[in-house]
Amino acid sequence: MAKTAIKPTRQENYPEWYQQVIKAADMAESSPVRGCMVIKPWGYTIWENMQHGLDVMFKETGHENAYFPLFIPMSFLEKEAEHVEGFAKECAVVTHHRLEPGPDGGLVPAGELEEPLIVRPTSETIIGAMYAKWVQSYRDLPILINQWANVVRWELRTRLFLRTTEFLWQEGHTAHATEAEAREETERMLAVYADFAENQMAMPVICGEKTAEERFPGAVSTYSIEAMMQDRKALQAGTSHFLGQNFARAQEIKFQDQHGVEQFAWTTSWGVSTRLVGALIMTHADDDGLVLPPRLAPRHVVILPVIRKDEDRTAVMEYVEKLAAELKGVYYGDGKVQVKIDDRDLRGGEKRWQHVKRGVPLIVEVGPRDIAEGNVFVGRRDTGEKGPLARDEFVATVAQRLDAIQSNLFQRALKLREDNTRRIDSLDEFRQFFTAKNPQKPEIHGGFALSHWAESPEATKILKKLKVTVRCLPLKADDEPGVCIFSGQPSRQRVVLAKAY
Amino acid sequence: MAKTAIKPTRQENYPEWYQQVIKAADMAESSPVRGCMVIKPWGYTIWENMQHGLDVMFKETGHENAYFPLFIPMSFLEKEAEHVEGFAKECAVVTHHRLEPGPDGGLVPAGELEEPLIVRPTSETIIGAMYAKWVQSYRDLPILINQWANVVRWELRTRLFLRTTEFLWQEGHTAHATEAEAREETERMLAVYADFAENQMAMPVICGEKTAEERFPGAVSTYSIEAMMQDRKALQAGTSHFLGQNFARAQEIKFQDQHGVEQFAWTTSWGVSTRLVGALIMTHADDDGLVLPPRLAPRHVVILPVIRKDEDRTAVMEYVEKLAAELKGVYYGDGKVQVKIDDRDLRGGEKRWQHVKRGVPLIVEVGPRDIAEGNVFVGRRDTGEKGPLARDEFVATVAQRLDAIQSNLFQRALKLREDNTRRIDSLDEFRQFFTAKNPQKPEIHGGFALSHWAESPEATKILKKLKVTVRCLPLKADDEPGVCIFSGQPSRQRVVLAKAY
Repeated sequence: MAKTAIKPTRQENYPEWYQQVIKAADMAESSPVRGCMVIKPWGYTIWENMQHGLDVMFKETGHENAYFPLFIPMSFLEKEAEHVEGFAKECAVVTHHRLEPGPDGGLVPAGELEEPLIVRPTSETIIGAMYAKWVQSYRDLPILINQWANVVRWELRTRLFLRTTEFLWQEGHTAHATEAEAREETERMLAVYADFAENQMAMPVICGEKTAEERFPGAVSTYSIEAMMQDRKALQAGTSHFLGQNFARAQEIKFQDQHGVEQFAWTTSWGVSTRLVGALIMTHADDDGLVLPPRLAPRHVVILPVIRKDEDRTAVMEYVEKLAAELKGVYYGDGKVQVKIDDRDLRGGEKRWQHVKRGVPLIVEVGPRDIAEGNVFVGRRDTGEKGPLARDEFVATVAQRLDAIQSNLFQRALKLREDNTRRIDSLDEFRQFFTAKNPQKPEIHGGFALSHWAESPEATKILKKLKVTVRCLPLKADDEPGVCIFSGQPSRQRVVLAKAY
Repeated sequence: MAKTAIKPTRQENYPEWYQQVIKAADMAESSPVRGCMVIKPWGYTIWENMQHGLDVMFKETGHENAYFPLFIPMSFLEKEAEHVEGFAKECAVVTHHRLEPGPDGGLVPAGELEEPLIVRPTSETIIGAMYAKWVQSYRDLPILINQWANVVRWELRTRLFLRTTEFLWQEGHTAHATEAEAREETERMLAVYADFAENQMAMPVICGEKTAEERFPGAVSTYSIEAMMQDRKALQAGTSHFLGQNFARAQEIKFQDQHGVEQFAWTTSWGVSTRLVGALIMTHADDDGLVLPPRLAPRHVVILPVIRKDEDRTAVMEYVEKLAAELKGVYYGDGKVQVKIDDRDLRGGEKRWQHVKRGVPLIVEVGPRDIAEGNVFVGRRDTGEKGPLARDEFVATVAQRLDAIQSNLFQRALKLREDNTRRIDSLDEFRQFFTAKNPQKPEIHGGFALSHWAESPEATKILKKLKVTVRCLPLKADDEPGVCIFSGQPSRQRVVLAKAY
């Protein structure tokens, strides 16, 4: 068996492999605060690149950013019954506004608040309260606002990036004069997320509607993008909610229409979070560590000068500095190629492995012999291919090479999904698909089942036992109505069923 | 008296004028959460532009961004005695992690935490705890990290942007192997702030050290940039702290030096906040509303098509769209000229005033007569100058015109400061400077006094009575030692004294 940088490998222990990749790439770690993570610079820069990519798309679709309070008065949360039901069990509650010396010397909370404040788990209620003030007439609509913020949900079981007590996200909140417009917005933003996932994260996704059970608390319809991770489990990577007039009613977002009639507004909300960083890892990383799609990589090229004798130093450094300067001038994505020379005084192998583990797309080594031959020695992270290339050719083709990596990662992930997606029409086959043990891959089995399904107690019971959920009702369904494999009831379309994060 | 868009004017009632400018420019408003503001898109985009400008400078000086938890365990705060003393009286305390139905039907906090969590008022303690884990050897130093985040300080009296319970900021936290390096970092970041304030905000600042009394709780030395607002009061716009080994001791940030000897690290921290938006307003806005330095303006040029007859519409819109496209291609700052055509169906005057009040640097009107003459009608926000210009000349000179506005705003603010700064060598003159009533300007008097000062009970008493504080001991002092005007004690240099925000 080949030696790998990450122990255990994906096959040996997938959840532990995931933690080790994060550690090896120096992306994040747990903090002393229960369930809260520290996002280290390498992980945070990936998030910044995601933010940038999304922010451009939000602005292109007419949205503006704004900022609303971290705290939500308890009474606001209570206004929408399903909403409070969904979040009351997992929220951080601020009850005091200072500390003072206690009876045994230490500090104790003091200055009790008249009304407790909730640290926002999501901001529909506080943002809705503002929209109610801002909207008087149909002329004030639509409101198309996005917020980049931190939110807190008191999760019992946490996991770096995938589920943390505090996480970073964006939440779009829009208000419209008509149902049609609000529904269009909900779908538009789902499409933006799918575009971002596929073209920037190189992560294929299925767009679909969630079932009633998995709806956002208070929403009329929830849509999501669902991706398959390398352990064949599904990960919900972004959601877009059509809220109907539920929140508008609870918060009195009312307007006068063209005919002078008072109406409730139609609202939407949509969000993605630092969970996307977890999705990125689990989609592309391998047994040597992180693998980054170039569109989101903090660095595209790392150059390692190979200096064995001191007298070579000047010539090698001059060569690599000129090379770096030329590469930095090349356009890639909506910026330039990001290049770093790593001339730290470390053993070459150790240094090279650091960048491999961090997922740098192209690692370039340059020593005296390469210089003599006018070459550079280029390693490609996604395929592991390595070899010499004429220096000028490398400079001329670096953007193409990054594009090729981006495209290969997408195709590879798509193939994994296709290889592990099955149309299943019998309950036996369904059970077998999700329970068959592969002794080589104890963590990895199952995949996406495309089956006919209808909501029923039978279906719920079987799925619960198998720990499988309906991920979504795909928007692009290319099949005909059929019969639910669990209950025999009629079904409009096949749904995606999978184990999920 | 000229009619102004903002009532009251600066002279009539400066604090109320400030609130009205924010309202007229649609930048922010109070929220239903005590002391917390909502930053609306126009205000938030200015903050985003500030973030971008600063972030580039932080990265150029070798810093990386990361993210640390929102919550700080109470015991962490207690480790540094002065620090907890400084923040215990004004912090939001999380004591519970869910809500449950209470005896009278409503919700009540439940799930009491073993240890209360503080919503970060600043992050020295939680970040220090992580650095303690990350630093083992001198090879792990320096650590140069910045965080963009929200923080909470339970202020009693709040004011949009200037002092709010929650605010947005950046906090740099660095750790170094030597005192000299940490001191150098402290000064480097103060210089970055001064550069940003003067060259992007067009706001002249004085760099100096704070007195012991105004030091950051737990710091060895605190430095600040101080600016003069239009009411002649000082505003502290950014601070950089040399923390010595105080926090390293409290949190055990220790490393082995080159000789294998265990040492405490030397740390710094530095921050600016959304308060800068308030500083920007109070430096440049006038009685017609906001005035924006082009380097930070969300929009540089707004084009208003003037269409009085329907048959002119096509020709005017074609002309302005071509004009806008050309202007958008012009480089300005580190991006392009930001242009918007406002063809909303509103009265021309009303529309124009909206952009005046929002501080758009150049407002361009184009009607059929301008088109016939190959002209555009350009209004400059900072000086109020208006007039026709040849269309092509305007396109060719738009970046220069924006530079001229940027430079004029800086010069105007500098002149205000110079006109209102006085070297004062007698206590009588000092008293008079800060108490003389100007019946024309009840809100506006005093300024910066440059006087000799030494810490003493006499000085403290007089200053307290006058509501004047020592703003800083300027780093560039161009005078000789002297005698304190309050106590007669020897003084090393003149200090800046002023009333302050």
